[in-house]
Amino acid sequence: MNRTEIQTLGEFGLIDRLTSGITPKDSTTIKGIGDDAAVLDHKSYRTLVTTDILLEGVHFNLEYVPLRHLGYKSAVVNISDICAMNGRPTQLVVALGISKRFSVEDIEELYSGIRIACERYGVDLVGGDTTASLTGLTISITCIGEAKKDDVVYRSGAQVNDIICCTGNLGAAYMGLQLLERERIASAGDNEQAQKAFEGKEYILERQLKPEARRDIVLKLGEAGIRPTSMIDISDGLSSELLHICKASGVGCSVYADKLPIDYETAAMAEELNMDVVTCALNGGEDYELLFTISQKDYDKILPLEDVSLIGYIQKAEYGCNLVTRSGNEIKLKAQGFDAYSE
Amino acid sequence: MNRTEIQTLGEFGLIDRLTSGITPKDSTTIKGIGDDAAVLDHKSYRTLVTTDILLEGVHFNLEYVPLRHLGYKSAVVNISDICAMNGRPTQLVVALGISKRFSVEDIEELYSGIRIACERYGVDLVGGDTTASLTGLTISITCIGEAKKDDVVYRSGAQVNDIICCTGNLGAAYMGLQLLERERIASAGDNEQAQKAFEGKEYILERQLKPEARRDIVLKLGEAGIRPTSMIDISDGLSSELLHICKASGVGCSVYADKLPIDYETAAMAEELNMDVVTCALNGGEDYELLFTISQKDYDKILPLEDVSLIGYIQKAEYGCNLVTRSGNEIKLKAQGFDAYSE
Repeated sequence: MNRTEIQTLGEFGLIDRLTSGITPKDSTTIKGIGDDAAVLDHKSYRTLVTTDILLEGVHFNLEYVPLRHLGYKSAVVNISDICAMNGRPTQLVVALGISKRFSVEDIEELYSGIRIACERYGVDLVGGDTTASLTGLTISITCIGEAKKDDVVYRSGAQVNDIICCTGNLGAAYMGLQLLERERIASAGDNEQAQKAFEGKEYILERQLKPEARRDIVLKLGEAGIRPTSMIDISDGLSSELLHICKASGVGCSVYADKLPIDYETAAMAEELNMDVVTCALNGGEDYELLFTISQKDYDKILPLEDVSLIGYIQKAEYGCNLVTRSGNEIKLKAQGFDAYSE
Repeated sequence: MNRTEIQTLGEFGLIDRLTSGITPKDSTTIKGIGDDAAVLDHKSYRTLVTTDILLEGVHFNLEYVPLRHLGYKSAVVNISDICAMNGRPTQLVVALGISKRFSVEDIEELYSGIRIACERYGVDLVGGDTTASLTGLTISITCIGEAKKDDVVYRSGAQVNDIICCTGNLGAAYMGLQLLERERIASAGDNEQAQKAFEGKEYILERQLKPEARRDIVLKLGEAGIRPTSMIDISDGLSSELLHICKASGVGCSVYADKLPIDYETAAMAEELNMDVVTCALNGGEDYELLFTISQKDYDKILPLEDVSLIGYIQKAEYGCNLVTRSGNEIKLKAQGFDAYSE
């Protein structure tokens, strides 16, 4: 048998290959593979389903991530996927693989974080599976949500001339990760030294350790009478997600470097690390902000919404997907986001 | 902080502790933690959700389990949980953690098994997550199903005098595992020797490597107009599952050793290994047969059903849960089933 290394395909290439030819047959399946969540038909409502798996040493490092934060984040990344379908998250199931290194109290800490996230987002923890593992900690969470039939927003609905919007600000979680990594090495367990290095950088740390799903924005969009034409959450970086939307919708895009929302702590940290802040905003993962497109007719409605930035617009497919730099040059967007296979 | 080793609580003790005080709040949550699947309200229908995680070295050994069989089995164990709620499995999501040891072709093999199971059971594969892992293979699957509002069967509905039934036969998968383990050691990679040792034992091997969910029985029960009063699938062994039903229903039970359905290959293998076959039937896991209780009034309806055995009846709680041996003695049932923490 041939042996193709997985990194030659990458995560998305592997998924494409594994899922080619899979077509939903059950009458309740509206949308299968290929969006933030699957969509199931329950008459006037749609049920949304999404799953994420987090592995120790790949997605998290317990040297600097407290278990409670890890639990919280594990739940939030799934809740975020339901929000990205314009849905209401309702239930969560949790599967854990736990090595002997962990005590009951450790797992209770992890669970307490999951439970806090569930309470905050009004989600019920309804089931799961726990088992021993030989190595490390594995967390696999599936989140269920619902939306009215006509409210579900896919990646594939972006139309030429639509306005591209994103919530909050970008690159902060990635800068928080860089800071944690640096201090883990520099302070080598000296907590006092690490604490001092973290001063004035609380925001980017929190964005990395305790991200939030933008359910608030989903609610505000609903109140404002705006139904996005497409939506995705930013887990792998803005570039990667924009390319997902453009590919699924069969369109191109222009985004403007000077429109990208960036917090001052993110900018300061990038400067300190001698990194380009726009690159961090484009490719830094784990922000869990929402990226969405709206019709031009909703322009007046979107303006009053706090914490939403208009960063570009949808172009014809022939134009491609481009970043317009501050100096007016156009650079082709590439997906250089977080990909566990390429690291 | 205290350190309690997880094995002091065991899997079920850990789950009890982690989930104590969790009460569903969302109006669509009918049943949360504590059955084969969670139950969600979608008007006249209920949505069922179940999840299972399988870890290399704990739940499977790739030395003797082909990847395609593993994929098939991973899907079937989840489908079985939906059947155990008297439901129709409809969708599946798959999360994989994959180490560098595995090639794309390996994962395609695994996926092909999942896809074959989906086709066989009419289930749509609607989403997932794949990621690199540092060690081994992790498979986490969530299955969604549906049932009409009044058709859902919980563990908790068994009533005194109900008849206890089980499908197929017991202990076969466990005997298949014993055979595989023995030959792995004995033949040490000598395939010809192993093949010879497997002759005449194809049935128990298949029960271990390629178990089936008893969707056929769920359909037949429906056709016969029988709604079980309680139901569970046998993943951890008959004793363990009987105790789950009795605990959830607040009842006791008598099961008869001479009524336990046992295949002749299972009996022959137990004899060869000098093991007690009744103990294998009671405590051997991974049969994925259905264990259910029916009202006495359905006695005449159940008799014509092929592949269903009547093995005992429900008693008052004070009586406890007992096995009646061939010699008429009563032995208290214990959960000695498959528990990844105690191994």
